[in-house]
Amino acid sequence: MAGQIDKISVKTGKISHVIYIGNRILDSLFEKDEIRNADKVAIVASSRVFEIHERYIRSAIQHMNEPEIFLMADGEENKNYRYAEMFLEDFLAKGLTRQSVVIGIGGGVVGDFAGFLASIYMRGIRVIHVPTTLLAMVDSSIGGKVAVNLSAGKNIVGSFHQPSMVVTDISFLHTLDDAEFKNGLVEALKHGLIGDRSSVRIFESNDTDSIRDDKVIAQLITQSASFKAAVVEADEKESGRRAILNYGHTIGHAIESLSGYKDITHGEAVALGMKVKLAVSKKLGWLTDDDIKRIGVIFKTYDLVRKDVSFAPDEIIAHMQYDKKNAGGKFNFVLLKGIGNPLYNQQIDEKVLYEVLEESFG
Amino acid sequence: MAGQIDKISVKTGKISHVIYIGNRILDSLFEKDEIRNADKVAIVASSRVFEIHERYIRSAIQHMNEPEIFLMADGEENKNYRYAEMFLEDFLAKGLTRQSVVIGIGGGVVGDFAGFLASIYMRGIRVIHVPTTLLAMVDSSIGGKVAVNLSAGKNIVGSFHQPSMVVTDISFLHTLDDAEFKNGLVEALKHGLIGDRSSVRIFESNDTDSIRDDKVIAQLITQSASFKAAVVEADEKESGRRAILNYGHTIGHAIESLSGYKDITHGEAVALGMKVKLAVSKKLGWLTDDDIKRIGVIFKTYDLVRKDVSFAPDEIIAHMQYDKKNAGGKFNFVLLKGIGNPLYNQQIDEKVLYEVLEESFG
Repeated sequence: MAGQIDKISVKTGKISHVIYIGNRILDSLFEKDEIRNADKVAIVASSRVFEIHERYIRSAIQHMNEPEIFLMADGEENKNYRYAEMFLEDFLAKGLTRQSVVIGIGGGVVGDFAGFLASIYMRGIRVIHVPTTLLAMVDSSIGGKVAVNLSAGKNIVGSFHQPSMVVTDISFLHTLDDAEFKNGLVEALKHGLIGDRSSVRIFESNDTDSIRDDKVIAQLITQSASFKAAVVEADEKESGRRAILNYGHTIGHAIESLSGYKDITHGEAVALGMKVKLAVSKKLGWLTDDDIKRIGVIFKTYDLVRKDVSFAPDEIIAHMQYDKKNAGGKFNFVLLKGIGNPLYNQQIDEKVLYEVLEESFG
Repeated sequence: MAGQIDKISVKTGKISHVIYIGNRILDSLFEKDEIRNADKVAIVASSRVFEIHERYIRSAIQHMNEPEIFLMADGEENKNYRYAEMFLEDFLAKGLTRQSVVIGIGGGVVGDFAGFLASIYMRGIRVIHVPTTLLAMVDSSIGGKVAVNLSAGKNIVGSFHQPSMVVTDISFLHTLDDAEFKNGLVEALKHGLIGDRSSVRIFESNDTDSIRDDKVIAQLITQSASFKAAVVEADEKESGRRAILNYGHTIGHAIESLSGYKDITHGEAVALGMKVKLAVSKKLGWLTDDDIKRIGVIFKTYDLVRKDVSFAPDEIIAHMQYDKKNAGGKFNFVLLKGIGNPLYNQQIDEKVLYEVLEESFG
């Protein structure tokens, strides 16, 4: 039975939507108007999640108008432009109209993909996200960024397409493995570092076991999702402040790319990226030894930072996205000036970055 | 040298853009900020238009930041999802960023395609339309509808992506053939019938020759484009009134589809569609004999309605888009109640439609 349901309202432009957070809430929420007034419902589900939770999902959709299930093969490599065409053709074959709604059930990959399909099918139809990973719950289901990959680059094709509703059912976390769980913790910690101070305290007063407790994780998700929603509301299209959400990601992506997207998870790469960025702030005198120590304790408690990997500074720099580098050999970074105080559009010399990378991985 | 430049401002949401209309104005407008602040300019041009106007286009783009030319094979059949992938990959290979701008130079097909590319590249970059056909000038370059085709359906994939500027240079019309010109006249007349009364008077006081005069056609384009812009401003996403712009198009599309998109132009099909819709209004007592006669004179003067084609009523009905038909065997139509007074969401019995189709093509 559903217990407490937390609600976060997200307002972008003239439109609002609600993020519902609770345990075993899928059934009750599928009674909402967003579903009732749809002539057809397209369930785009991760095949892995569907395999595990088929009975729960089928019971939740049984009263919907003509639900059609489209299973998506898991994995970032399937989140591509060409694979999307098959789904769009299928949508048409199954008779989806402008009054239909897409429900994405899965992690960040499925959310990006289902959102992309909805954003371009018949010039845009509604999408509802049902995030099933911690990362999707605290981060990717919020903010309306949808995208697919081209062979030459990740997330190159997409748009901003806000969901009409997000249903965050934490019961899906019970079957989430530790590595996936850690991916989400890293993004929640990122929110903590860039301003979400209450989340930092949740990290500090728990450990790897207690944080997976339903009550604690629901509190962290609600806190972290609210923080992200506020950043998105202030700058939906990332013309300014929303850039703070990329904290640690430029270097993280370079590490992922350098590793060929294997042998290291997204969370591990971003955690390493944040560690480097913290060291840059330290070097600039913007963080104290105590600050670094405080974050270090969290890194250690949740085992977020890999010690067994090393990367050559110039290889990381070579893999950093070209658009992050300015003409004069400077990098455009988000940097902390104190925990919880991010500054974006900070210009950092390649030389400084090189030194810090050497100290971090030397 | 550029003479007078007419300006139409189009406001959608919080954003405005300007439609510039004049003769030989390409050079002067490429000095605008929209171009100057772009780090790269992607020219997506119809290969046919580029072949004819290469010198003029090259001279206009010579002072731009790193212009790259991408030629698009003409024809609706190329405006598809798969073909778009090649251009998106090329954009990335040529280093286009979020600060780049796409300029579409061509007719409606190129505008739809270039706009679609811009709408999804890096979650949306700016697009400038340079319409080179009369249809694109009075209709498709205005309103932000962008789309590509799937194998199973036209314009199924797309979005609303307003241009940051439209440059309507009527010198392109000097090389436009009569059939293409007529396609545009039909859409301008459609605007006339649904409310743009000044355009109806322009039609009435000219003929096939005089309407191609630079001054006259510039006046018609300015008038017709202003009308469409006002309709779009009131209902950008077509949740209501914008539907009036589809006048004659449901039946027109059925005729095109029935003809396999050959042997009949889009304009001819829409003109036949309007003729049927006028007859429905006549049958309902919503138009007088004089109204029908008045429009008939325009149809005749500009030779807009084919007399040498005939279609079986049930075949037309079978080819009408499924979403136009309601459960109870009724069609959802835009109908005129007097010239210049369109009503949308009118429910018409299949029986009435059948009778009118029989009278029209019998």
